[in-house]
Amino acid sequence: MTRIDNRQTDELRPVTVDVDYLIHPEGSVLITVGQTKVICTATIEDRVPGFLRGQGKGWITAEYSMLPRATNSRNRREASAGKIGGRTMEIQRLIGRALRAVVDLEKLGERTLWIDCDVIQADGGTRTASITGAFIAMTMAIGKLELPAFPVTDFLAATSVGVTAENGSILDLNYVEDSSAEVDMNLVMTGAGHFVELQGTGEESTFTRAQLNELMDLGEAGISQLVAMQRDALGELSARVGEKVPAER
Amino acid sequence: MTRIDNRQTDELRPVTVDVDYLIHPEGSVLITVGQTKVICTATIEDRVPGFLRGQGKGWITAEYSMLPRATNSRNRREASAGKIGGRTMEIQRLIGRALRAVVDLEKLGERTLWIDCDVIQADGGTRTASITGAFIAMTMAIGKLELPAFPVTDFLAATSVGVTAENGSILDLNYVEDSSAEVDMNLVMTGAGHFVELQGTGEESTFTRAQLNELMDLGEAGISQLVAMQRDALGELSARVGEKVPAER
Amino acid sequence: MTRIDNRQTDELRPVTVDVDYLIHPEGSVLITVGQTKVICTATIEDRVPGFLRGQGKGWITAEYSMLPRATNSRNRREASAGKIGGRTMEIQRLIGRALRAVVDLEKLGERTLWIDCDVIQADGGTRTASITGAFIAMTMAIGKLELPAFPVTDFLAATSVGVTAENGSILDLNYVEDSSAEVDMNLVMTGAGHFVELQGTGEESTFTRAQLNELMDLGEAGISQLVAMQRDALGELSARVGEKVPAER
Amino acid sequence: MTRIDNRQTDELRPVTVDVDYLIHPEGSVLITVGQTKVICTATIEDRVPGFLRGQGKGWITAEYSMLPRATNSRNRREASAGKIGGRTMEIQRLIGRALRAVVDLEKLGERTLWIDCDVIQADGGTRTASITGAFIAMTMAIGKLELPAFPVTDFLAATSVGVTAENGSILDLNYVEDSSAEVDMNLVMTGAGHFVELQGTGEESTFTRAQLNELMDLGEAGISQLVAMQRDALGELSARVGEKVPAER
Amino acid sequence: MTRIDNRQTDELRPVTVDVDYLIHPEGSVLITVGQTKVICTATIEDRVPGFLRGQGKGWITAEYSMLPRATNSRNRREASAGKIGGRTMEIQRLIGRALRAVVDLEKLGERTLWIDCDVIQADGGTRTASITGAFIAMTMAIGKLELPAFPVTDFLAATSVGVTAENGSILDLNYVEDSSAEVDMNLVMTGAGHFVELQGTGEESTFTRAQLNELMDLGEAGISQLVAMQRDALGELSARVGEKVPAER
Amino acid sequence: MTRIDNRQTDELRPVTVDVDYLIHPEGSVLITVGQTKVICTATIEDRVPGFLRGQGKGWITAEYSMLPRATNSRNRREASAGKIGGRTMEIQRLIGRALRAVVDLEKLGERTLWIDCDVIQADGGTRTASITGAFIAMTMAIGKLELPAFPVTDFLAATSVGVTAENGSILDLNYVEDSSAEVDMNLVMTGAGHFVELQGTGEESTFTRAQLNELMDLGEAGISQLVAMQRDALGELSARVGEKVPAER
Repeated sequence: MTRIDNRQTDELRPVTVDVDYLIHPEGSVLITVGQTKVICTATIEDRVPGFLRGQGKGWITAEYSMLPRATNSRNRREASAGKIGGRTMEIQRLIGRALRAVVDLEKLGERTLWIDCDVIQADGGTRTASITGAFIAMTMAIGKLELPAFPVTDFLAATSVGVTAENGSILDLNYVEDSSAEVDMNLVMTGAGHFVELQGTGEESTFTRAQLNELMDLGEAGISQLVAMQRDALGELSARVGEKVPAER
Repeated sequence: MTRIDNRQTDELRPVTVDVDYLIHPEGSVLITVGQTKVICTATIEDRVPGFLRGQGKGWITAEYSMLPRATNSRNRREASAGKIGGRTMEIQRLIGRALRAVVDLEKLGERTLWIDCDVIQADGGTRTASITGAFIAMTMAIGKLELPAFPVTDFLAATSVGVTAENGSILDLNYVEDSSAEVDMNLVMTGAGHFVELQGTGEESTFTRAQLNELMDLGEAGISQLVAMQRDALGELSARVGEKVPAER
Repeated sequence: MTRIDNRQTDELRPVTVDVDYLIHPEGSVLITVGQTKVICTATIEDRVPGFLRGQGKGWITAEYSMLPRATNSRNRREASAGKIGGRTMEIQRLIGRALRAVVDLEKLGERTLWIDCDVIQADGGTRTASITGAFIAMTMAIGKLELPAFPVTDFLAATSVGVTAENGSILDLNYVEDSSAEVDMNLVMTGAGHFVELQGTGEESTFTRAQLNELMDLGEAGISQLVAMQRDALGELSARVGEKVPAER
Repeated sequence: MTRIDNRQTDELRPVTVDVDYLIHPEGSVLITVGQTKVICTATIEDRVPGFLRGQGKGWITAEYSMLPRATNSRNRREASAGKIGGRTMEIQRLIGRALRAVVDLEKLGERTLWIDCDVIQADGGTRTASITGAFIAMTMAIGKLELPAFPVTDFLAATSVGVTAENGSILDLNYVEDSSAEVDMNLVMTGAGHFVELQGTGEESTFTRAQLNELMDLGEAGISQLVAMQRDALGELSARVGEKVPAER
Repeated sequence: MTRIDNRQTDELRPVTVDVDYLIHPEGSVLITVGQTKVICTATIEDRVPGFLRGQGKGWITAEYSMLPRATNSRNRREASAGKIGGRTMEIQRLIGRALRAVVDLEKLGERTLWIDCDVIQADGGTRTASITGAFIAMTMAIGKLELPAFPVTDFLAATSVGVTAENGSILDLNYVEDSSAEVDMNLVMTGAGHFVELQGTGEESTFTRAQLNELMDLGEAGISQLVAMQRDALGELSARVGEKVPAER
Repeated sequence: MTRIDNRQTDELRPVTVDVDYLIHPEGSVLITVGQTKVICTATIEDRVPGFLRGQGKGWITAEYSMLPRATNSRNRREASAGKIGGRTMEIQRLIGRALRAVVDLEKLGERTLWIDCDVIQADGGTRTASITGAFIAMTMAIGKLELPAFPVTDFLAATSVGVTAENGSILDLNYVEDSSAEVDMNLVMTGAGHFVELQGTGEESTFTRAQLNELMDLGEAGISQLVAMQRDALGELSARVGEKVPAER
């Protein structure tokens, strides 16, 4: 059975990246994955949170939000509710943690990178699109610092894989697929093909180790295509990601 | 002395409207006024707030927000702060009140229109751009209801006028002009040229009645150009705004 | 048709001011405008908010509240609700902004003036009565500082004007008039007759420029009577308002 | 050694009550105890909280607040802080509990009495003045219900007693005395001389049973004077307090 | 009539204390009073709140909470509700105030003692069990500081007394007795038999001075048994409580 | 190199379960995993959240908390902070989701199971101990419902695996190991050996697919030992888990 949007089971949705999308931030992109659209921005602040002060290290923190009508029915704003929901917290913690895995915080120096991912339109995969787009915005912002040693150690991209009754194991689920999936897994991986995060959930269901292996094969292939797209988007700056310079500490 | 962006004192910034900007909302636009960009969406909910229930009347309510990096330096999210600031409250109350002035709430029926104005990029005039854009999104959403009597009674647009030391009375202030203005005034007017809202403030300064008259001349001219733009954007639906049909109640 | 309380269309309600109403504050009044009663106090704090520190300038900030039974039916306390409503925010921002327009913040020095307006009884016009009363409390508190150059540059008073179906354009609306008004406008003006704030709203209605002019004629006349009353209340201190002394900076 | 305000150790401060102080509430007083001034209002709502619904019983709940400058230095508003402090909570729970002890909630019927005590000026004893004043406001509001069986079963008044180093055991502490007291005790008693509440605290100190007895002698005498004052203030309504009528249910 | 658990009217429930119950805190106990179980911990922090800084004095503050199913039906967590209820505030203020009465804060030095009382299982008397247990945990934590002059000046224990229709005046009420009591009183006393806190409430009822005396006789006897138990639990450390050493200041 | 507590790399810490630990809840255990101690309770409520009403299905929701001194230094209470942190949210969402995977919500009927996990003492692995213990408490509570078809479809337990520099891949990390781990992974699995949740994170590090496989081998072995322990703890009730009865819908 073919997928609802005629994709193959191992096929990503079309991905485009609009770099320097906004005039104010140090780095910004509009990333589009199928119908999912996220504005990712990176802001550099010249100080770090209290727990890091005076250690010569930087920090990366992320915030995530959706416009009320990014979705099919309107969601109440978290600012109106007066608190941030559990799903939002989980996602923004994930984005920050993932990005920190590919940045040498000592090379960054005592600075905080604020990453903002604002979903303008949602059709599944907003957290993985956020990570993939945020990596580009962050790298552009860091590029502007003109640091002697480039702190970004590798590329970083994310996608989802899952299992549906109709199509078995599939790559990059859209909203309809995600809603009916028995298993839903998010993968964050580096340009070198290593894992940074792996979060798999049986949705009122379970999965076997064989299924897990199948899903990871799909995911690895998808990530490598996303990293290639990131290289294109970053242009010359790509060359500095993971560059080897004699560290002096 | 010429204005910072070479405009005449009575010249609006370029305005464009991208209709049906998002796939999910009943009405949506991206309005661009110079460098200011706002996504305005309209959502129709089939019930009204408690205080209106059972009266056969509808309601219109608005929410306004800015992305953290819509501005030159990053603003903390109101969701993170856990409360909505005074400026935001003032603006969203203004937007809702203004739109209700040109909608016959009885013809709307027991429905709530949720208007969301999310500023993606700010360069002055975000509240007036929000009103001008929200009118279009709202009218499009109401158009989809296919009501026998069209509830929108007139066009509605907004702009700012002000007084600066360099240029005297000017129309449609950008951020730099707004920051140094001695007087700042927001005008919301109808297609018929009537006032809906008039909010003028001397910024640690005062103004005379003669200045007030001069500012209103500028504002009226600006509003009529914005209404012409709204007619274009709404296309055929324009004809229904203010249509006279025998009311049957 | 005569007004509900037999006033002429251009007639203010009776206004009285009880100065030094409380023993603790640096300045305090109970202002009574018809049935509306507001306690206004001014507190001097010897430091300024963070954004002003070290600039040699002062600041004025205002807070506004109503007792739960200031009104006909009981309003929930904002402290119980855990947040300040939009109407309250709008009003307290207005009061602070208006007072700052007639105070030379550099002559005030690095001090914060806290203005508290607590409505004990409400019958329309609570925000304008608050401004008129707060000006007196503030000026008394500043008088106690015995500064060489008096920071208050002019008198400041506020009133409302509006349009009702029964009486057309009227001055100083009470609650019943305000509830049924088609147009409602608040004016804040100086002793010299200049505008500080002008906020006019068509309440689910609109107004023409001719009506606007008529309303401002009414308002100007009312303000000059209120300023005369303020001169009386302040006694000798009146002479220092707007005094010209050679500034030395 | 004489007390700071020349009172005898067993002497109350002058107490006055201004009944029907406000036009809107069903019952209202301004009670003045020395320099302490509290506006007490009673509001009748025709329904009860969820936990009492359908039981044919009423409820009494109280809220307490101080104006920011009721005190010598300005206190931050609890509405601005976004939450009610522990001291306020303790006091408003005490006021409600005390009043419920002298009201037959079944005779009251399914109604809620909202008691609001707003301290305009504080000089010690604000919670006891609130209770003494609130009893009057409440009884007046209940009087307007014209119920067949009067629900108020007895008078209720409150005062403080304490121990200071200078004067030993004293009645009705003002702020200066309260601040230096070693023991501080609040008494709530009925017209019949029975206890409703007794809260004694050694302030970083302790007290003996002999001291406790001495303090209660002082308190009992003070309460009976306050009850006499309440009788005067209530006039004819006094006769209905504690009236014996054949209950019919 | 015998009590529900066959106790005499002047009989405490069985009390046990499990010292060093947890591995991390500086002092910790599990206190069991009948079916009521509370974990009390004491934490030492090497700084004091802002209002005490630089005065050479310490501070003691307490927090109290119940597990959701400490009670017969589940209580909503205060963390989920987003605020602390009035009952909790009252209790934690009481615990802190009581403990401060038997600690010489100057001998403690600039340190804060955080007392946490977490009720695991509730059957009446949770606040008095918390105080009795917290005293032990606090004293153990202070013991570890090895200060030259021991800051704890006396023992401190708490219990409840009350009046029920069935049994008249009784000591140490369990939940069933507490729910039906006409009078409920909490006593906090020292090893020397002095009062620290006395809080008596007629629950929709009143009490006479004769009843008050009877209740205090019961309470005093109960407290002395609890203090004896505390001596046992503290072992050698007991000898340091109230020790006389030449103070040198 | 041996582990800090002398365990083998594939060795669990000692696990004990104290069933019916509290008297009030429908199900309760104290689970001890090494030094980590968690009280898990299950409460049955006879209604479901709004989004499920009228569908004949039940719901399971979990809350997680730590006592302030469950850890080495004191953590601020979330109730005092006024909001629940991101880590807590993540954990309680995980616990609820995991338990729902092994309960047939239709067989449960329109009921909500509230699971509370309160960590009394923490030494790593609090979330996995919570899941393992909560499964027992939940199953005991469901057992008391005496439903014709038993809703629990399989056993469910959780443990952690990780990679440290000293010991490579290890099972069941304690706090010290967890703090220095390069990779940290939580596994939730069923009695049948299927995955319910898999969450792996490179802590400022990454991991390869080979490492992932090694970790899962360790985890699977650990889970099967935990399930055996659960069988013992549940006694006769174990036989009903996963029982096959002809479903009639």
